[in-house]
Amino acid sequence: MASVTVSWQEVAEAKRLAILDAIPEKWRIRECIPPATELPDVTGNYIQGFLSPREIEITEADAVTITKQTSSGNWSAVEATEAFCHRAAIAHQLVNCLHEVFFEDAIQVAKELDAYFGATGKPMGPLHGLPVSLKDQFHVKGVETTMGYVGWVGTFEGKRDDPRAKMAESELVRELRRAGAIVFCKTSVPLTLMAGETANNIIGYTWNPKNRHLSCGGSSGGEGALIALRGSPAGFGTDIGGSIRVPAAFNGIFGLRPSAGRMPYEGAANSIDGQNTILSVVGPMGTSAGSLKLLFKAILSQEPWLHDPLALAMPWRDDVEMQTQSLIEASAKDPSLLTFAIMRHDSVVQPHPPVRQALMLMEQTLKNRGHQVIEWCPQNCQVGHEIADKAYSLDGGEDLTDQIALSGEGKIPQCFIQTGKHWKAREIAALNVQKRLYQKMYMDYWNSTDQLTGTGRPVDAIICPVAPHAAVIPGRYRHVGYTSFVNVLDYTSAVIPVTNADKVVHRIGNPIEYLSDIDEQVQSEYDAEMYHGAPVGIQLIGRRLEEEKILTMADFISRELENALK
Amino acid sequence: MASVTVSWQEVAEAKRLAILDAIPEKWRIRECIPPATELPDVTGNYIQGFLSPREIEITEADAVTITKQTSSGNWSAVEATEAFCHRAAIAHQLVNCLHEVFFEDAIQVAKELDAYFGATGKPMGPLHGLPVSLKDQFHVKGVETTMGYVGWVGTFEGKRDDPRAKMAESELVRELRRAGAIVFCKTSVPLTLMAGETANNIIGYTWNPKNRHLSCGGSSGGEGALIALRGSPAGFGTDIGGSIRVPAAFNGIFGLRPSAGRMPYEGAANSIDGQNTILSVVGPMGTSAGSLKLLFKAILSQEPWLHDPLALAMPWRDDVEMQTQSLIEASAKDPSLLTFAIMRHDSVVQPHPPVRQALMLMEQTLKNRGHQVIEWCPQNCQVGHEIADKAYSLDGGEDLTDQIALSGEGKIPQCFIQTGKHWKAREIAALNVQKRLYQKMYMDYWNSTDQLTGTGRPVDAIICPVAPHAAVIPGRYRHVGYTSFVNVLDYTSAVIPVTNADKVVHRIGNPIEYLSDIDEQVQSEYDAEMYHGAPVGIQLIGRRLEEEKILTMADFISRELENALK
Repeated sequence: MASVTVSWQEVAEAKRLAILDAIPEKWRIRECIPPATELPDVTGNYIQGFLSPREIEITEADAVTITKQTSSGNWSAVEATEAFCHRAAIAHQLVNCLHEVFFEDAIQVAKELDAYFGATGKPMGPLHGLPVSLKDQFHVKGVETTMGYVGWVGTFEGKRDDPRAKMAESELVRELRRAGAIVFCKTSVPLTLMAGETANNIIGYTWNPKNRHLSCGGSSGGEGALIALRGSPAGFGTDIGGSIRVPAAFNGIFGLRPSAGRMPYEGAANSIDGQNTILSVVGPMGTSAGSLKLLFKAILSQEPWLHDPLALAMPWRDDVEMQTQSLIEASAKDPSLLTFAIMRHDSVVQPHPPVRQALMLMEQTLKNRGHQVIEWCPQNCQVGHEIADKAYSLDGGEDLTDQIALSGEGKIPQCFIQTGKHWKAREIAALNVQKRLYQKMYMDYWNSTDQLTGTGRPVDAIICPVAPHAAVIPGRYRHVGYTSFVNVLDYTSAVIPVTNADKVVHRIGNPIEYLSDIDEQVQSEYDAEMYHGAPVGIQLIGRRLEEEKILTMADFISRELENALK
Repeated sequence: MASVTVSWQEVAEAKRLAILDAIPEKWRIRECIPPATELPDVTGNYIQGFLSPREIEITEADAVTITKQTSSGNWSAVEATEAFCHRAAIAHQLVNCLHEVFFEDAIQVAKELDAYFGATGKPMGPLHGLPVSLKDQFHVKGVETTMGYVGWVGTFEGKRDDPRAKMAESELVRELRRAGAIVFCKTSVPLTLMAGETANNIIGYTWNPKNRHLSCGGSSGGEGALIALRGSPAGFGTDIGGSIRVPAAFNGIFGLRPSAGRMPYEGAANSIDGQNTILSVVGPMGTSAGSLKLLFKAILSQEPWLHDPLALAMPWRDDVEMQTQSLIEASAKDPSLLTFAIMRHDSVVQPHPPVRQALMLMEQTLKNRGHQVIEWCPQNCQVGHEIADKAYSLDGGEDLTDQIALSGEGKIPQCFIQTGKHWKAREIAALNVQKRLYQKMYMDYWNSTDQLTGTGRPVDAIICPVAPHAAVIPGRYRHVGYTSFVNVLDYTSAVIPVTNADKVVHRIGNPIEYLSDIDEQVQSEYDAEMYHGAPVGIQLIGRRLEEEKILTMADFISRELENALK
């Protein structure tokens, strides 16, 4: 392809068609898909209509169940993989959630796993036979990585004639393979990755499968949409400002933003690589809290710290898990053993009615069990997201602008590129100090809650919105402060799906006092009709490097919620 | 003091005298101290001449022994503290190693500890009654922190009328107190901290107590000299390019450079604060490997990660310690269980004869026990220290220059201030990526040694010089590459004292081939006569966050060395 004669639109179109063409003919949808106005929700019955009962059985199991079946030989890896490939193919045709489709390679790997199991009677590893999807930042041998940039098509991260193109494999992928997982597709991301929605010039817009008028979130938006449609049982995204948690919340699934250094980022493509005021992190997404734990623990079992210089030598800590589990069990009798805090708003923008109700549901569930839930009101709350905004733009948007310029493609309005000031070393150092002071202030505040709980112990976790809104109306994501402050703090945060917006229940309540101009705008954009059906998830935030504790508590709380909502 | 009428020389002189004045009259040396030409070595007999037999007994015990005695009530905390205060006072008068003297406060704390022990029969914590010295970066209530800057006298980190002056206390100090330690003095540092020698306009030059023609190293030079003179059993320094390891090696003591995040830096003064391409780290120094472990473990017992946002939630790992201990024991029968690599030079500058012999002694000791010692020859070895040099100068020396300009004081020639280019965000990001690639290359090389050892396991540690020379001749520290590459890698490194330069034994050998111009210069500067008596220490380098393993192995190797040299 001679770039002189081909427009970026043609390259994008060719790539878009190549993704579709990679879907086997038998799985292409030939009938007309009803428009969103007729059928907003394509999950459940609608997508099931394309599948056999056996495929539905397999694809609607969570990663824990699937792995149990494939690791015991009840289900073959090939059968599980084919079922997910089929469902992922349908999912993509419904909401545009895939960037790369490599089903044949996946099925080949599944065959080898089955052969291994047949020969040894043992699973290959803790994820034996589990299909896993990946955000399109991870390199997989034989497959391209575009990250949504037209200029990256046919290159290695934008570099032409680089021998690593289609040859490199990210460390995470190597570890997934060693654990017995089967990677089978890569999912869509927004141009630049810096957006709470997912749109790029190759695949267009990735829609929310629960309500196709709305966004699937971003930047791990393709993961969120695919997993919500059960086109994948679980996958990995990345998060520098909310990019795992937002799509998890918007799609009604679970997601974990671990602290930096726990999951391997080595050898993955990234935006603004080398910016280290706030590090992007890798984390799992799935349909149950148990799935997140399974994936997280499986990766740690591969000792990523021996292969990724930024990974911490911190294996899965059974003692922390067991301690938390014991606390949870003992707290059935003595609820003061576990206490929580609730952050009702971040002092900049208040949550919409569906999010307020999700918070309340979670609060009530915990209170019904006897747990104390104190108010979470740290000082200068907004400083966190101000620091984050600066950290994302230190180079004046140069890196992002350059990637876009490779092809000359158009920008996507949702992408956050703050051009202009290019920071100098000393200014960055001052920002790093400001960040540390903010972290220290927050940490001291957390410690001080031992005085507020009355138990002598600080709170165990914070309950907090993921965004002011449920899965957002396109173009209306105006405030990422609910997630980005967590990145500044480098705290552990798990997203738990709680409810869906309901046009009947979540009417606009009494007039509220606005916290800011942006609050007024965001409140004015609540539209009960439009948001109907949009999922709402809530963050369960722990301290830095408390993944074992937060995953264990997320599992507990999600079960309690399920029981409460029965 | 009105700054308009007082010159920086007068401020410096007043501060210098104030330090001396803080030493009780009874401990001031009135007789003439023989010049270095007559008596280069003031350790041992000479300093003992100022002390009672009981004081000698106490001060020549290591931190482990002292703590045993003070924690069991055999020695009172007051007696131990007074002995060290006396000896530190003498030490300072011999080599200029103190910045702050607060013996009265220390003795008051010791009295309280004795009262606590008297009342409860229990020690306050794991360091009950142990006097501990601190590099003059840590804030202690009631005491100034100048970090050697004349412009910081009477301020808080150079800020006038700041209420934190003499009020703030660093997190490390808080934790030491809770562990039962007694802080009693702060030790000298070079102006800017960026130097391998210790000199500033307040106290002048800190000399090496084993040979007062030579440097005590830097930047934790005062710690090194004081501990070598047994004026303190143990203390804490910091290390961004070798600043713990160099003074440990130059003074014949032990020192640990942990990986970033293990020891709390929170609330300490620093140079170029907020530069986060290479983080400075805090680590212990002492007269035995066991002392380092005692201090390190005691600080971790205080859970620094709940109070320092940069500290990792990683307690002392008993399992790693026990595993290493078991390996060491089992390796007496099967030496292949532990293998080592030796880095003979860093491809830029070769070590002087005393350092070569120290390396050889260590190698021979391990080989005599049957351990394999392979050659350590990673590619592009010099890239590490090139990255470090850049990281130290990202702001074009602005921060350091500004601190010096506060008083208008003169620069110290040994300080490394590379003025000029002020880096931009995107250039820094590129440097961070280059650093990560270097770390990855090094890590892969380490992993690949499983093929070279023949044991199927990669090497357990690397033996490596600390500097090309023994305790250096003033003004001749030309290459910090042997330590700074470890900071880039963020590896754990313990310094073990091995030998002393000897003018008879360490003659210049056969002519050698120079690796570089700087090598030729460094080799030409070897002077057997001048270096006579200068200590030589060797690094034992482990991977990132392998402190438990390296401390356990350092203890083992130092005992083996002792036995071998008997």
